[in-house]
Amino acid sequence: MKRVYNFAAGPATMPPKVLETAANEMLCFGDSGMSVMEMTHRGKAYQDIFDETIHLIRNLMQIPDSYEILLLQGGATGQFAAIPLNLMTDYASADYIDSGNFAHGALVEAQKYGTVRVVASSREENYVRVPEFDPAVFDPKADYFYITTNNTIYGTRYHILPDTGSVPLVADASSNILSEVFDITRFGVLFAGAQKNIGPAGVTLVIVRKDLLGRPSPLTPKVWDWTLQAKQGSMLNTPPTYAIYLCGLCLKWLEEQGGVAAIEKINIEKSKMLYEFLDESALFNGIAQPISRSRMNVTFRTKDPELDALFVKEATTAGLCNVKGHRAAGGMRASIYNAMPVEGVISLIQFMKDFEVRNK
Amino acid sequence: MKRVYNFAAGPATMPPKVLETAANEMLCFGDSGMSVMEMTHRGKAYQDIFDETIHLIRNLMQIPDSYEILLLQGGATGQFAAIPLNLMTDYASADYIDSGNFAHGALVEAQKYGTVRVVASSREENYVRVPEFDPAVFDPKADYFYITTNNTIYGTRYHILPDTGSVPLVADASSNILSEVFDITRFGVLFAGAQKNIGPAGVTLVIVRKDLLGRPSPLTPKVWDWTLQAKQGSMLNTPPTYAIYLCGLCLKWLEEQGGVAAIEKINIEKSKMLYEFLDESALFNGIAQPISRSRMNVTFRTKDPELDALFVKEATTAGLCNVKGHRAAGGMRASIYNAMPVEGVISLIQFMKDFEVRNK
Repeated sequence: MKRVYNFAAGPATMPPKVLETAANEMLCFGDSGMSVMEMTHRGKAYQDIFDETIHLIRNLMQIPDSYEILLLQGGATGQFAAIPLNLMTDYASADYIDSGNFAHGALVEAQKYGTVRVVASSREENYVRVPEFDPAVFDPKADYFYITTNNTIYGTRYHILPDTGSVPLVADASSNILSEVFDITRFGVLFAGAQKNIGPAGVTLVIVRKDLLGRPSPLTPKVWDWTLQAKQGSMLNTPPTYAIYLCGLCLKWLEEQGGVAAIEKINIEKSKMLYEFLDESALFNGIAQPISRSRMNVTFRTKDPELDALFVKEATTAGLCNVKGHRAAGGMRASIYNAMPVEGVISLIQFMKDFEVRNK
Repeated sequence: MKRVYNFAAGPATMPPKVLETAANEMLCFGDSGMSVMEMTHRGKAYQDIFDETIHLIRNLMQIPDSYEILLLQGGATGQFAAIPLNLMTDYASADYIDSGNFAHGALVEAQKYGTVRVVASSREENYVRVPEFDPAVFDPKADYFYITTNNTIYGTRYHILPDTGSVPLVADASSNILSEVFDITRFGVLFAGAQKNIGPAGVTLVIVRKDLLGRPSPLTPKVWDWTLQAKQGSMLNTPPTYAIYLCGLCLKWLEEQGGVAAIEKINIEKSKMLYEFLDESALFNGIAQPISRSRMNVTFRTKDPELDALFVKEATTAGLCNVKGHRAAGGMRASIYNAMPVEGVISLIQFMKDFEVRNK
């Protein structure tokens, strides 16, 4: 069976080289005599794999020692609770920007633990852009200021980050982490579910500035207590060992591609090709407003939902899979994360051109 | 490189056949054109894998429809918080038996959310047996009654479950689930981290009687809200898709072995061989008291910690790995879960006999 081009939004396509290495090492990793998933997390063999993974994240993202790097469980949605539990403990209030379904989910979850001020929202516009924001309405005493750097469902992205002054910026970067160079020092906390650009589902990366530790609510479940997990090297309890190993393989692959700056250039190229075609096409239109277009999730549609459905069906048959849009946005979505090769995007554009000719 | 016998307490040894299947399907599962870890969790291909896994659990454990089966993240330690958050909401008090480090961790965590009554403890005896309990001290109004069915570190196990009347029995069965036939109707909740007898680390199985749903604390993080997760088929957020697929492969393997009753017989045989040798040996002694001996984790030692260290070192060289005991119990520990073949236990006993001759 031939491998397809998989445009799924996450879990998403992985580099074939990573999968080949994982297959080869499945029954026996190095001279350990066992699979990585059989290793005790308290032994040197696994600790080396874990440390290498953290080292790769630190190097690839140029994270200074003033930040802790945690690998946890529960997904970004788990962190929607962990963030207020770890940070909303001084002033007991935080500012949120509502730029999409996940941003909205995060602020609803945070309301369980304190006061949430929604300082900007594009909800009324069905999130076709990230909302404009007026720094004058930011609360300078807020425990933190929350954004979603890239909105997977609508295909939008912050092109300019808000300046929140001394208020720590907390950002969900699940769908564009490692796809572009982030200046980590702009953030108090940057977190992400792994299943788009880091590795398989089941790992959550939390990068937290050390001065923000030490103030968890007494109600914080201990597996999500960043302060405790930092002290215990993310091994307060058994980590998702095999998924972390797979993240490490993906990060090594990214390093071999030249790192984040190099992949960012390719990501700009891939998304530009697709948006240029959308802007020229008489049949297809982009959904996200140009000012907020994502490089990772490109949303588009025709004027006819039935034609959209036909497109999804025919694309799947042609080996261009999972291009159906999320029901909240409609139409189509091509998620083109780091592991999607340029050839995949070219194939998709060619297929769209052919489809347009056949359906004028 | 030859595979070793791996006696690790968890993550632990897996059936080679499972690893072979996973390696073969790594780049392409069936006719999907992709790895299982690349599949969207919202598609039919992955839903089929997930449903089959739940079906296997229900069949193998003979779980009636009056129980929900959830697959979550965060480990058993995450559930130490989730249990009081989901259940300690009526009377706001629960009874706990303190039979080991994890039982103790569970009750300390629960104290964040309500009143914990420790109704029996063997902590003062360094947990060499499960404590005796007097049903007269049980609180008949408690929201639940908590035990750990098998204590991984000390190698102890409940041979007789407490009768808690109408109070729901909540049990952490992480280290002996699927190793013996449990009558699930004795339990309100049975839960387990996957990394011993179910699959790789990163999945938490929660089996909950349906009448116990619907009463979560408003402070419950939504990914651990059993009621919500039950409504959404454990897919409120992205599940650890690949780890769940691996659990499914392990469960299929268990079914091929004849199921839980058949593996229980083998587990009795394996542990009996080892305990009989310990009881006869002039050098080695079992640590757990006979009345509470575990079939999954067999703890033992010589009279000399230096000899213990030598044993661990020489065993490792001989391909009998991870027999060092947990520091809280000392000595050695052989974890002999379902996937440890009889031959592995025979090899270990033979090595112990030889070691005894050499170190009289």
